[in-house]
Amino acid sequence: MTQRRLKFWGWGYEDQTLTEDDSLMIVKRLNKLTGLQPNSYLSPPSLSEINLPKPRSSVPNRLSHLVSQTDYDRASHTYGKSYPDYIRAFAKDFSCCPDSVCFPETNENILELLEWGSEINAAIIPFGCGSSVVGGIEPRVGDKFSSVITIDMRKMNQVLEIDKTSRAARIQAGALGPQLEAGLKKSGLTLRHFPQSFEFSTLGGWIATRSGGHFATLYPHIDELVESLVTVTPKGVMESRRLPGSGAGPSPDRLIIGSEGSLGLITEAWMRVHSKPEFRKSAVVRFKNIEAAGQSIRSLLQAGLWPSNARFVDSEECRLAGVNKGDYHMVVIGFENSEQPVDTLMNKALECMEDHGGVFGIAGERDKTADIWRNAFISAPFKREGLISYGIMHDTFETSITWDKLSDFHENIKLVTEQVIKEVTGKPGHVTCRFTHAYTDGTAPYFTFHAETKPGQELEQWREIKTAAGDALLSAGGTITHHHAVGRDHMPWYERQRPQLFGGSLKAVKNYLDPESRLNPGVIIPLDKESSLP
Amino acid sequence: MTQRRLKFWGWGYEDQTLTEDDSLMIVKRLNKLTGLQPNSYLSPPSLSEINLPKPRSSVPNRLSHLVSQTDYDRASHTYGKSYPDYIRAFAKDFSCCPDSVCFPETNENILELLEWGSEINAAIIPFGCGSSVVGGIEPRVGDKFSSVITIDMRKMNQVLEIDKTSRAARIQAGALGPQLEAGLKKSGLTLRHFPQSFEFSTLGGWIATRSGGHFATLYPHIDELVESLVTVTPKGVMESRRLPGSGAGPSPDRLIIGSEGSLGLITEAWMRVHSKPEFRKSAVVRFKNIEAAGQSIRSLLQAGLWPSNARFVDSEECRLAGVNKGDYHMVVIGFENSEQPVDTLMNKALECMEDHGGVFGIAGERDKTADIWRNAFISAPFKREGLISYGIMHDTFETSITWDKLSDFHENIKLVTEQVIKEVTGKPGHVTCRFTHAYTDGTAPYFTFHAETKPGQELEQWREIKTAAGDALLSAGGTITHHHAVGRDHMPWYERQRPQLFGGSLKAVKNYLDPESRLNPGVIIPLDKESSLP
Repeated sequence: MTQRRLKFWGWGYEDQTLTEDDSLMIVKRLNKLTGLQPNSYLSPPSLSEINLPKPRSSVPNRLSHLVSQTDYDRASHTYGKSYPDYIRAFAKDFSCCPDSVCFPETNENILELLEWGSEINAAIIPFGCGSSVVGGIEPRVGDKFSSVITIDMRKMNQVLEIDKTSRAARIQAGALGPQLEAGLKKSGLTLRHFPQSFEFSTLGGWIATRSGGHFATLYPHIDELVESLVTVTPKGVMESRRLPGSGAGPSPDRLIIGSEGSLGLITEAWMRVHSKPEFRKSAVVRFKNIEAAGQSIRSLLQAGLWPSNARFVDSEECRLAGVNKGDYHMVVIGFENSEQPVDTLMNKALECMEDHGGVFGIAGERDKTADIWRNAFISAPFKREGLISYGIMHDTFETSITWDKLSDFHENIKLVTEQVIKEVTGKPGHVTCRFTHAYTDGTAPYFTFHAETKPGQELEQWREIKTAAGDALLSAGGTITHHHAVGRDHMPWYERQRPQLFGGSLKAVKNYLDPESRLNPGVIIPLDKESSLP
Repeated sequence: MTQRRLKFWGWGYEDQTLTEDDSLMIVKRLNKLTGLQPNSYLSPPSLSEINLPKPRSSVPNRLSHLVSQTDYDRASHTYGKSYPDYIRAFAKDFSCCPDSVCFPETNENILELLEWGSEINAAIIPFGCGSSVVGGIEPRVGDKFSSVITIDMRKMNQVLEIDKTSRAARIQAGALGPQLEAGLKKSGLTLRHFPQSFEFSTLGGWIATRSGGHFATLYPHIDELVESLVTVTPKGVMESRRLPGSGAGPSPDRLIIGSEGSLGLITEAWMRVHSKPEFRKSAVVRFKNIEAAGQSIRSLLQAGLWPSNARFVDSEECRLAGVNKGDYHMVVIGFENSEQPVDTLMNKALECMEDHGGVFGIAGERDKTADIWRNAFISAPFKREGLISYGIMHDTFETSITWDKLSDFHENIKLVTEQVIKEVTGKPGHVTCRFTHAYTDGTAPYFTFHAETKPGQELEQWREIKTAAGDALLSAGGTITHHHAVGRDHMPWYERQRPQLFGGSLKAVKNYLDPESRLNPGVIIPLDKESSLP
């Protein structure tokens, strides 16, 4: 029996690779819906076509049980899953692959690997399951290193301990979403953190990148679910105390949460978990007007209703997902609870939506359009492969903004993105938007765009579009990322966005915890040279 | 018309000083309830009796409009409001007073003052309104400084801007609780952060110390209410971006929140505010059994009911507050909402409490016992003065613990504290407990104790009790503080509690932001010598 292997160049398992026909169907559908024209088909790379550079370091005997230098392991740890990652993979460019890929089983293993890294002057790249869309795990580390070691956490994937009374669980960082949910299920518990990458991302990755999950309100980020952390740094192991709440100095965990592997490798966490929800209601509310839809979500939040789901999807994104004919925008509302019915909450929410002009079917009845959209959401990363095969650029970017600025902000960002696509590709692109998470003081707009490309110029074209969109986000008051993280790709904007003195503070921490600056160089803390796009 | 002046030695305004008769009444009542015997009366200090050391530095002309060296200003910025603070004030020991007290009006003023501090080798103590009970603002700064400058933020006390749409307000850090609530009220808004010190503490102090507020669940700490911060450091001004949520690197704000003036002076913040609650319900539920009461609160939290209030008070604390005869423990439950009735939530909560053996009056009707307890809670800091005048030791300490450990933890801490009081004072003391805040994974026990003292030995006796209690908290898995902060008094335990590598990380940040180590020396980042109690 062979184990399913992940594609070395894209989303999912090898047996989930699209055929040319699959891809054609996807691109034809897009063409019908948007008018965007495909280029000729380019098949995904196969490992035999790839020329990997020879590993620059040999593996010492004492570590041979932890380290691989096979072509598959090195190639599959070269890229994340961003658009430029696909383009370079399809171009068979794996020149910046890591020299070694390691699979530690304990904190001690990691400390040994860090020591080895120091001996051979290697950069160290922490790796969950490689779902980064921001260059977070790519060995683009500058030229001061003699080698690159990627540390893949997949073997540290257990639910180690469950405290049913406190609803908390100690989980290893390398656990994939489905693995940790399986481990919790036996006790009737669930983390209920379901990022789009759920199947192919790990707890440690979520924490390192401040992942955005299932809950649209109340617990939008993984941050709030972390009770304590164990982090391995070149200086040793840092372990925070398990506490429900504390006022003893700045939070140790919040320094590590979002550090994206630049300060240490998260190896385990006590996580706040939930009972399986027994009561659930979901509804789809239709709006003619984006502003009214946004205001309806704002009013839910400010009324303290805390829906588990409150997602706006614009009419164009609905049309692309097959939800409707583009004749209305949709807000998906959901409530769930482990102990008690949520009908009253749902009724109040629907009243509230109705006050803002929202229209819905039978109150509280599950609307199939929500399922259609959900399936489109989950399959999107798979389908992207087909679009890219046919030369269609497909990318997303996300941000957050306070309610007072939302309306102008949304219009402005959409316009800038449409304009730059037209300038760069000579053809109108297709830009849609949803709001993924909501707060009392604002929301998180998430943009998806499609554009035609000129073969061989995809990266340049993408860079221009990405740059214009990023600049627009920042100058309109948004963040360069709400939950996709910074990685290497967002560094130019991140450096402008974060307070300069905070950047210096992180650098000071890095110098202390990682004095040789080996951990994920170029991420969060910039390399000496200016940060730039791939 | 003269302005009310704050006592230079204790809680409240000068006109709120207790007479000998007031104090006698308070101590007699305590004696009747607990059997604790008073010593002979000691009157509070008057300014004319205090010998302050001569200021070690003169004020340069360019700063004279910002700086005071009057006896009143220097004496009133010497201590916080802890038990050892009172003891030393009553002993007329103000030897460690600051040399200068400054009242800046702008960030630029603060930068000038920091520069002056550097010129004269001064320690800088950021000061809100001096409500610290942990030595947070006391000039106990080691011997490497030639002067101490206290920066009192009271003149930066305005609500500068209100964004009604996003429910957020930009507020200066020196605003006292009542000042900022008055500024928000005009717009129908409220921060609803009501620590016990509300009247005599500032927004900046709350943020710097991770203050615990009105909301027992959901937003227990001020942390969650902060949208963005402006902080003045010796390196310059650090300003974070106003964002409802972000995943761009570790949170810049969370590094400053809880830094207790050791990294910079918080000068303003965008805060998440609320509409005034229109619908409110509160109830008192009686329990015979502490464990059942705790479990009932746990079940509320884990059912996602999010009461705004869910406080357990043990029977002895009820008796002392005049709530009852000590015949039952009490849980105060409250719900509030600006938009919709909370009756359903309250009924569900009461059902839930009943399932755990809780008994209550008319469902949802306001029970007067809650008001009695609330009044006792607010007047407690005033009454302490009377007890201390008569030689009764009165102090509190608080912590947090996960639900799985609560029962043993509570018993153990209470026992240790009772034992050490008996050992140290030769007489049984009186130890009570309430749980102030609740989380899905645990709660925050808050202990109050009373003990007899031997005149002249109060500090030594307190130190022994504090040490035993602190040691017990830590070894039983708690935190040395849930919302009172670290200050100088908790440093010995804080250094044991926080991950050692996190301590080093904070020191690295301090070296960067405050390279001459002038800001609140000895707080959060230890002085070179070992930390110890006053």
